[in-house]
Amino acid sequence: MTAPTTPQRWSFLGPAGTFTEMALRQVAPPDVELDSCQDVPTALDRVRERQSDAAVVPIENSIEGGVNATLDNLVSGAPLTIAAEVAVPITFVLAGREGTRLEDVRAISTHPHAWAQCRGWVHRNLPDAVYVAGTSTSAPAKALAGSEDPGSLGYEAVLCNPLAAEQYGLAVIAGGVADNAGAITRFVKVTRPGRIGEPTGADKTTLQVQLPHDRSGALLGMLEQFSARGVNLSRIESRPVGDSLGRYRFSIDIEGHVREERVQAALIGLHRTCPQVRFLGSYPRLDARPVVVPAGTSDKDFIVARAWVKDVLDGRTL
Amino acid sequence: MTAPTTPQRWSFLGPAGTFTEMALRQVAPPDVELDSCQDVPTALDRVRERQSDAAVVPIENSIEGGVNATLDNLVSGAPLTIAAEVAVPITFVLAGREGTRLEDVRAISTHPHAWAQCRGWVHRNLPDAVYVAGTSTSAPAKALAGSEDPGSLGYEAVLCNPLAAEQYGLAVIAGGVADNAGAITRFVKVTRPGRIGEPTGADKTTLQVQLPHDRSGALLGMLEQFSARGVNLSRIESRPVGDSLGRYRFSIDIEGHVREERVQAALIGLHRTCPQVRFLGSYPRLDARPVVVPAGTSDKDFIVARAWVKDVLDGRTL
Amino acid sequence: MTAPTTPQRWSFLGPAGTFTEMALRQVAPPDVELDSCQDVPTALDRVRERQSDAAVVPIENSIEGGVNATLDNLVSGAPLTIAAEVAVPITFVLAGREGTRLEDVRAISTHPHAWAQCRGWVHRNLPDAVYVAGTSTSAPAKALAGSEDPGSLGYEAVLCNPLAAEQYGLAVIAGGVADNAGAITRFVKVTRPGRIGEPTGADKTTLQVQLPHDRSGALLGMLEQFSARGVNLSRIESRPVGDSLGRYRFSIDIEGHVREERVQAALIGLHRTCPQVRFLGSYPRLDARPVVVPAGTSDKDFIVARAWVKDVLDGRTL
Amino acid sequence: MTAPTTPQRWSFLGPAGTFTEMALRQVAPPDVELDSCQDVPTALDRVRERQSDAAVVPIENSIEGGVNATLDNLVSGAPLTIAAEVAVPITFVLAGREGTRLEDVRAISTHPHAWAQCRGWVHRNLPDAVYVAGTSTSAPAKALAGSEDPGSLGYEAVLCNPLAAEQYGLAVIAGGVADNAGAITRFVKVTRPGRIGEPTGADKTTLQVQLPHDRSGALLGMLEQFSARGVNLSRIESRPVGDSLGRYRFSIDIEGHVREERVQAALIGLHRTCPQVRFLGSYPRLDARPVVVPAGTSDKDFIVARAWVKDVLDGRTL
Repeated sequence: MTAPTTPQRWSFLGPAGTFTEMALRQVAPPDVELDSCQDVPTALDRVRERQSDAAVVPIENSIEGGVNATLDNLVSGAPLTIAAEVAVPITFVLAGREGTRLEDVRAISTHPHAWAQCRGWVHRNLPDAVYVAGTSTSAPAKALAGSEDPGSLGYEAVLCNPLAAEQYGLAVIAGGVADNAGAITRFVKVTRPGRIGEPTGADKTTLQVQLPHDRSGALLGMLEQFSARGVNLSRIESRPVGDSLGRYRFSIDIEGHVREERVQAALIGLHRTCPQVRFLGSYPRLDARPVVVPAGTSDKDFIVARAWVKDVLDGRTL
Repeated sequence: MTAPTTPQRWSFLGPAGTFTEMALRQVAPPDVELDSCQDVPTALDRVRERQSDAAVVPIENSIEGGVNATLDNLVSGAPLTIAAEVAVPITFVLAGREGTRLEDVRAISTHPHAWAQCRGWVHRNLPDAVYVAGTSTSAPAKALAGSEDPGSLGYEAVLCNPLAAEQYGLAVIAGGVADNAGAITRFVKVTRPGRIGEPTGADKTTLQVQLPHDRSGALLGMLEQFSARGVNLSRIESRPVGDSLGRYRFSIDIEGHVREERVQAALIGLHRTCPQVRFLGSYPRLDARPVVVPAGTSDKDFIVARAWVKDVLDGRTL
Repeated sequence: MTAPTTPQRWSFLGPAGTFTEMALRQVAPPDVELDSCQDVPTALDRVRERQSDAAVVPIENSIEGGVNATLDNLVSGAPLTIAAEVAVPITFVLAGREGTRLEDVRAISTHPHAWAQCRGWVHRNLPDAVYVAGTSTSAPAKALAGSEDPGSLGYEAVLCNPLAAEQYGLAVIAGGVADNAGAITRFVKVTRPGRIGEPTGADKTTLQVQLPHDRSGALLGMLEQFSARGVNLSRIESRPVGDSLGRYRFSIDIEGHVREERVQAALIGLHRTCPQVRFLGSYPRLDARPVVVPAGTSDKDFIVARAWVKDVLDGRTL
Repeated sequence: MTAPTTPQRWSFLGPAGTFTEMALRQVAPPDVELDSCQDVPTALDRVRERQSDAAVVPIENSIEGGVNATLDNLVSGAPLTIAAEVAVPITFVLAGREGTRLEDVRAISTHPHAWAQCRGWVHRNLPDAVYVAGTSTSAPAKALAGSEDPGSLGYEAVLCNPLAAEQYGLAVIAGGVADNAGAITRFVKVTRPGRIGEPTGADKTTLQVQLPHDRSGALLGMLEQFSARGVNLSRIESRPVGDSLGRYRFSIDIEGHVREERVQAALIGLHRTCPQVRFLGSYPRLDARPVVVPAGTSDKDFIVARAWVKDVLDGRTL
């Protein structure tokens, strides 16, 4: 008879009904205990402080780009590791309390990122509508649904995802209101660091690299550390270091796993030449597309080459 | 007797009292007519539609990075040109209505970027305070000061710049509340395109470059177009192209002026090899530090080299 | 009635019967007046001094590499231009006076390069044979055939090409004596500089480039001037500058014609960054294989890109 | 009482009195047994066949460039290792039998390389002199001195080094006849491969690298394997692979020792990406100038970086 295991607790950007919860549902165990947090740093700190087993946070949106709060927090606090990625199509509805008609809407609330992604639709259909900023896409929905005095909120409708409208019992006034129908947000599952597992052959590795200061061509030199080992970049985001204008660190995804030789060789090159490199995880690619390993950069190529150098040192020159 | 000239009208991210207005004041003529706009796209469209002569908008913050609304709008609409840059130190005060004490504050409103920059201070001094998102750093200050029913706003204090507190008649509860004392935001003055003026010797040029799709090493190749002509980058920000994950365009500042030969050579190289390049202006650097022109990349070097090629073609080989 | 034209006079490395004469015959007009010279510098000086219309000299051998005398003379004297190239398969026979048998041969004379290319055969078939150096592959043949006292020459056989054996009336003792059956020597037709003609689409351009002194990465930087414009190298030979060890200039063949934009752009880049560049001609490739022009480097790409930069300068930003 | 040791036997390009013997004298033990060989391949084969302990052969001349016979033999036969380098200034005298005057000289014999280096002087002082090729710089001197019938040799004077004139008892007709007063030839001591010793901090490493076939940018890619590890090249010579025109291998000297991490990393990169790499030795630089190790490429930098990657794999992320 096995001992009963405690269900896992996972943190996420709440409240219930956000796109983040939708992402979490795709990768969490069925009996997960949800820990709704008010912002990304809080969700990540719960993991650091061992109050959660994992956190799911957004990292990149196909329209808005990198999520600064996530990118910056992952390098500034105690080390965390990305263990998985998941993508969620971003769809918005305009929702209100039962009976609200389009022509009743004078003000709309949502998260600023959501507002940016629906501005065109609003401009065309509600040209006079005023924007009221919210802390997430579902918080204004929750407030609107639960308010005993909706008139005091200052808005009659919210832009949220269909799940949130349903969960909070709001009526959909209009659907498909996002300006770009194909928008996607990519989320990551974050855990405390542990021994790195084995590659699947379709992995990515996430890094944060700070460039040497005041050296012309530093970015070029950094990219050459990858290209010299045949390692391809699938994402690069620049973030300010924060102490002055003109200094950057880069958030990078590369194709491959840190247990592969060519990735290790690139990491060694980065560590030697850049003042700060942080490893943020090797994990399976969402699309499961096998990584193309260029000629001369397979594990075997590295092993054979190292053996040859050893032969050279011992006088067994060929 | 000269005809009286009409005062210029400049647009900016309002309302009055924002950091953007502080930036505008540094570069606008004294008799400028201010046009306060509710967001960056609106301010830029006023210039496009000839309702304003110029707009001043934020482009980069030393803590938060590039301002997406500005970076994205400058490439998506009708062409505009950056004509000047100006920087403003970002300082925040916690302000409230006369008589408000620190212990009275249960909720705070400000723009999300401002909130991100003061979160540490709030966490230490008002650990239980709730955040209420605002559309700018001064709008909540204006609302708090002007409200006839402050209790209905849902917050007792705002984070804003000292100018806004003074303009709206709020009392400073605490000063120096930004987590990073040296934060700076850089703003740009944007106008309709016109004939490019002469270099000052201390200029920068802003570009947006979209990388070729699905070509490994495309970013490296793009950077080599600059390095092959001795052109240094002072800023690079990646932005999603927007149609899918994994495709980027880059917002770039280079050292030099488009009337300089080496900059033109780099632009020609970019135009040949990247699917889309947008020129966004050549203008004096804020710090007036002369650009270092590497050996072999001066205008004279280019002129002499071209003359030599012409001699070669005509059989005057040396 | 047209005036009779004077036949051309062409110089070559003599005497009659050398591989150089064989090369010359392939490209010279039928009524050419031959000017046999004792060494390469003399042949090239005849053209410089207007005593010949052209010279044909060897430039590269598939076994021995670049021909130093040619490579060095082309950069040190008054300018000359390569107008055409031609290749000759290098075949050797062992030849002697009528009646000479293999077992009679105790010493063999030929040019040192020819000796190097037949050493294996001689080692196997005439292991005790002594080598007597000659100034060309046909001069010893001429001497052996014409001598009234062959015993005083110190050799009984020569290594020469079949044409020379025939011309001088020597008997072939053994044929196919070259160690590498596929050896080829490439020759060039050299003239005084003149206006450069039009490209054929299958051209090469020859350059001599001296690297900047004491700059780490100078060779890499030089090669990037080509790669940044999609120009491929088909030959590179290093030659000492001559004033000390460790300084080099490079003799380079690139694919393309100096009337093509991408070649001109590369030449301008070289002229700006290298202390000395000498253009040595654009001429049709021997193999007539059309040059592959990479995407973004056609003449049209350059013309469109330059027009765009002009638009930018005039305020017609797109 | 120690057992008497057998004196070493060293091979060199003879006969006695060549520059090669002068080089050998600088590095050989005093009681060395000299083994004079007729050409470079023979000298190197003596070492391979254990008939000699070492060979001294010329590898590079500051005027004529690389010595093909040496460069090519070192890659085509059984492995050998360069153990030391030595340089000899190249000076020539015009020498003849006692009583020979300048005006008596109608023909001159010497090695073709020597002739090339004195041609200007001969042209000015003996414009009608005929050249008779010799197999070394001292062989014609030996022949002239020892001949019982000097008239039958076909030359009255030789160009040789002062040592040869003295050894063979010839009189100096004119000194300082080299066109370039500062000419230097570099020689190498070659032995059978053995365990590689420790670095001195002022070492060089010699390699032969064959480029991948038909890959545009292959040379650039090869050089980047060095630059990505901060390894500087001090010599590069191209040599034909020999099977057709247009294919090259490169003889390269790099600054550093194969027991240094950055050199090993570059060698591993070469072995992975180039079809053939041959290691030809790590040995002290002639000039004893310490190698400059760029920031981030010291042994310690590599060791620390590798330890960090190991920490990453074990979950000890920092």
